[in-house]
Amino acid sequence: MRNPKPITHLHLKLMPQSPDPGRTWSALTKGIEPASVFLYSKIELKPFGRHLLAEYRGCESALLNDIDLIGKALRQAAVEAGSTIVASVFHPFTPQGVTGVVVLEESHLSIHTWPEHGYVAVDFYTCGDCEPMRAHEFLSKELGAKYAEVMFVDRGIEGVGDSMAVRKHTRSHAGAARRH
Amino acid sequence: MRNPKPITHLHLKLMPQSPDPGRTWSALTKGIEPASVFLYSKIELKPFGRHLLAEYRGCESALLNDIDLIGKALRQAAVEAGSTIVASVFHPFTPQGVTGVVVLEESHLSIHTWPEHGYVAVDFYTCGDCEPMRAHEFLSKELGAKYAEVMFVDRGIEGVGDSMAVRKHTRSHAGAARRH
Repeated sequence: MRNPKPITHLHLKLMPQSPDPGRTWSALTKGIEPASVFLYSKIELKPFGRHLLAEYRGCESALLNDIDLIGKALRQAAVEAGSTIVASVFHPFTPQGVTGVVVLEESHLSIHTWPEHGYVAVDFYTCGDCEPMRAHEFLSKELGAKYAEVMFVDRGIEGVGDSMAVRKHTRSHAGAARRH
Repeated sequence: MRNPKPITHLHLKLMPQSPDPGRTWSALTKGIEPASVFLYSKIELKPFGRHLLAEYRGCESALLNDIDLIGKALRQAAVEAGSTIVASVFHPFTPQGVTGVVVLEESHLSIHTWPEHGYVAVDFYTCGDCEPMRAHEFLSKELGAKYAEVMFVDRGIEGVGDSMAVRKHTRSHAGAARRH
């Protein structure tokens, strides 16, 4: 095997989702000792918040009209994500369904259900270290969603034109078994 | 002036934001009496909800740390939009700032403030007849925002691939005078 060409330049693009750009940089440069290093683009993207919008279809109607179950599921979803609950409010929708919000140390998690359509809308705004996808995974299973869609919007981005940007938008058809 | 070419075909694309597609259609076809009319695309977009994401920069720090003022402003914003308040929760952020949610008959309105950055994040999910832009206009003025950005996400769209879609994304630099 030929000796690899010596590294003389290292270009690194750090994205905002890098958990710790400083450590990532050190780990990448350690050992390779390039003759010179250029930080190609120090991108000034610092979103204050990650906003997860999720919706579910094909959920079981009876569950979506059960305000106690929805309350318990939403609070547990917040816990699963590693967030800290400050307060919560649940209210029956007219003519049916449930609306609920959990206020968190890390921002908020909301749910609105339409039992007649088997449809649920969720939003989870977080500015801390918690993991919103865990809340989504928990809720979609708990409500027996057959179809789930998730959109992640970065909020409060600095140093670029737009302050908000859709980072990710995914759909999934789940044969997800309910947990209970 | 030459006679205009007679209209023989009228193609109309009705979008979900049309307040009343039937009336729009009648108004457009009235008087022009086309020889034949084709409804080009009867789009089956029926969003359950409209989700307004808004953020403000350049707000006055002192306002953003005043939990009473933020509470009053958010509740008034809900009223300005024509929505009906069910409950509200406000909580001081750590180390500073305010997080607040107003639960509505029509869904919810939330706010999170960062006084140290003059930054505010708002979301307003509505499934009723209220006018979320009025809440945004009220809040951005009330908080003295110098920069505002708004993203509208349609939620729960039926009959197309994606259930969510960004309908609108606008930025504005406002020399908006505060109201008080």
